[in-house]
Amino acid sequence: MSRLTATYHVRSDARAITARAQGIAVEQSVEMPLSAIDDRQILDEIVGKVEDIREISPGLFAVRIALARATVGDDAGQLINMLFGNTSLQEDVVLHDAELPDDLVAKFAGPNVGFAGLRERAGASGRALTCSALKPQGLSPDRLADLAARFARGGIDTIKDDHGLADQAYSPFAARCDAIATALREVERETGQRVRYVPSLTGDLDALRAQVAAARNAGIDTVMAQPMIMGLSNFAKLVAENRDLAFFAHPTLAGAARISPVLLFGKLFRLFGADALVFPNHGGRFGYSPALCRELARTALGEWHGKKSAVPVPAGGMTIERIGEMLDFYGPEVMLLIGGALLEARERLTEETAAFVAKVKGHRYG
Amino acid sequence: MSRLTATYHVRSDARAITARAQGIAVEQSVEMPLSAIDDRQILDEIVGKVEDIREISPGLFAVRIALARATVGDDAGQLINMLFGNTSLQEDVVLHDAELPDDLVAKFAGPNVGFAGLRERAGASGRALTCSALKPQGLSPDRLADLAARFARGGIDTIKDDHGLADQAYSPFAARCDAIATALREVERETGQRVRYVPSLTGDLDALRAQVAAARNAGIDTVMAQPMIMGLSNFAKLVAENRDLAFFAHPTLAGAARISPVLLFGKLFRLFGADALVFPNHGGRFGYSPALCRELARTALGEWHGKKSAVPVPAGGMTIERIGEMLDFYGPEVMLLIGGALLEARERLTEETAAFVAKVKGHRYG
Repeated sequence: MSRLTATYHVRSDARAITARAQGIAVEQSVEMPLSAIDDRQILDEIVGKVEDIREISPGLFAVRIALARATVGDDAGQLINMLFGNTSLQEDVVLHDAELPDDLVAKFAGPNVGFAGLRERAGASGRALTCSALKPQGLSPDRLADLAARFARGGIDTIKDDHGLADQAYSPFAARCDAIATALREVERETGQRVRYVPSLTGDLDALRAQVAAARNAGIDTVMAQPMIMGLSNFAKLVAENRDLAFFAHPTLAGAARISPVLLFGKLFRLFGADALVFPNHGGRFGYSPALCRELARTALGEWHGKKSAVPVPAGGMTIERIGEMLDFYGPEVMLLIGGALLEARERLTEETAAFVAKVKGHRYG
Repeated sequence: MSRLTATYHVRSDARAITARAQGIAVEQSVEMPLSAIDDRQILDEIVGKVEDIREISPGLFAVRIALARATVGDDAGQLINMLFGNTSLQEDVVLHDAELPDDLVAKFAGPNVGFAGLRERAGASGRALTCSALKPQGLSPDRLADLAARFARGGIDTIKDDHGLADQAYSPFAARCDAIATALREVERETGQRVRYVPSLTGDLDALRAQVAAARNAGIDTVMAQPMIMGLSNFAKLVAENRDLAFFAHPTLAGAARISPVLLFGKLFRLFGADALVFPNHGGRFGYSPALCRELARTALGEWHGKKSAVPVPAGGMTIERIGEMLDFYGPEVMLLIGGALLEARERLTEETAAFVAKVKGHRYG
């Protein structure tokens, strides 16, 4: 019977790790004493199997466990349930990685357009993409549209909603889409450049669908999802229903260090359909290390079960000053996202955006 | 403008805590440098405000922050996004508690039937409720139905799915509901006692609705949700659409210690409609302390914005031997859930279940 493999990092005493690993294998499969199971087939095929235990640093063990493919069915939510559901409640364990069998991966199409598609849409062959964010919360659609137009005149590729923008009284989703799309079409008539606005989707699946319809109605072809808040199953469903749209994935509510971001963003979000992966860059407001960021970017871009690549979008307190360093670090296979630091330029927003874009376009990779 | 209040527990140096608290207030509201905001109303009404900082133990601070009600709208997912979305990515912070304004709470009805309703259905006035779990994964609907009948003959009130049971090839959801409901009706004809089967719902909102319909079709009036996997918005929607059903909430994927279980289960899951709250009891396979369990139970049962109470369901490796201790600890305002330990009795399952039920019914509270 087909298996998937989960790797956990477990803090443990060396004498206790064998029993602890077995405990995780049971917790993530049958969740009961094996002595109470008399069905040979379940013992052989359904119970999780500890395949390997390796000490990676003193008191920290990599535990590889094979789980039954059959327990997952074809549902994204059930996949994360079987990989980490109850074990997420135990403090000594991090879900580090997972290997999925081809027939499970084949149930999900991965990114709709992928990094190559996003580049093609932006006419940005071979270079890094640029992005900024609409904020703060509390602005009206007209005020946000005005901001968007000023970013657009600076030549940026993409403008996304701040992830806090939802369907609030002061900025209803449909009105926001209409106002911003109209403003960007006006700039396009001036400059000839189509700039993408990426609105953030929130709510239950009905609300998400209504928002996608409103976005389409405004001529928008890219949207942002919050997979851990809407639920992975609903994210995958939305992607599958909208094969012509590109999806950004935002990491909100993804917790710190309890599921490896390389796995959750670089593999799972991509598998379920993220074309662009927003994540906290090293040296910003969040604690990700350079090594983690590099691995995440490589994973998102690398060959994986034949899926399209997703573009890494390192973010979280980035500045114009860091552009050169970031491009040297990530290479041109990246979308740079600078939000608040551009907005700080206030009346010089368009010029500052233009400087951002020029730095990206003119960068000479070391 | 109306506010909600979040309390975070932050590990910090005493000299750094003021700036760190301010950083969280900005992260969870406008997410940009305040120097770039020129709108007085946004600075006054939308930006999060640090209301209090208190050192609760050396290097650990309780930080209370007021957030704008308007940023949440009426959506459960957006509420958790504003309370903890990006901050969940920062390792030094735990979301400890939240106070919600009445007009926000009024958007959600809370439990449909509540603890009192569950007791009434079970004819269990004044006593603790009893529950067991169907497992292991991999059993067919007929095998699970056989197990359910044996639990039922022992006089148990409720039989829930293990949270790993989904809509798998070896146990399709609808076939499982039909087989188990049929088996339990047969036992009811013998014993006169109606035992509730609580199937576990999985998948996107479409799948969840189809499963609710299948459960209703089998005469089932109680279901189990996994709010953190299906997404809080979808959970709240499902509850609102099915006011005659009772909902169990399972804690899977709720992480360890990054959001206080007292808040997440005892307040938010209840607010969005959980009638029964499954959580890891102290002294079992999970690390919750007795003090945490007691506070969680008190919160779930206590008066809160006029919502019905939800019954605490401490679980995770519980045994017959612990019944007396657990009843003394929780009192009769509890549902005891013993799963694997009953199944270990194998051919004596019904007798062991009857012993469990007798111990609960005959317990003399100290």
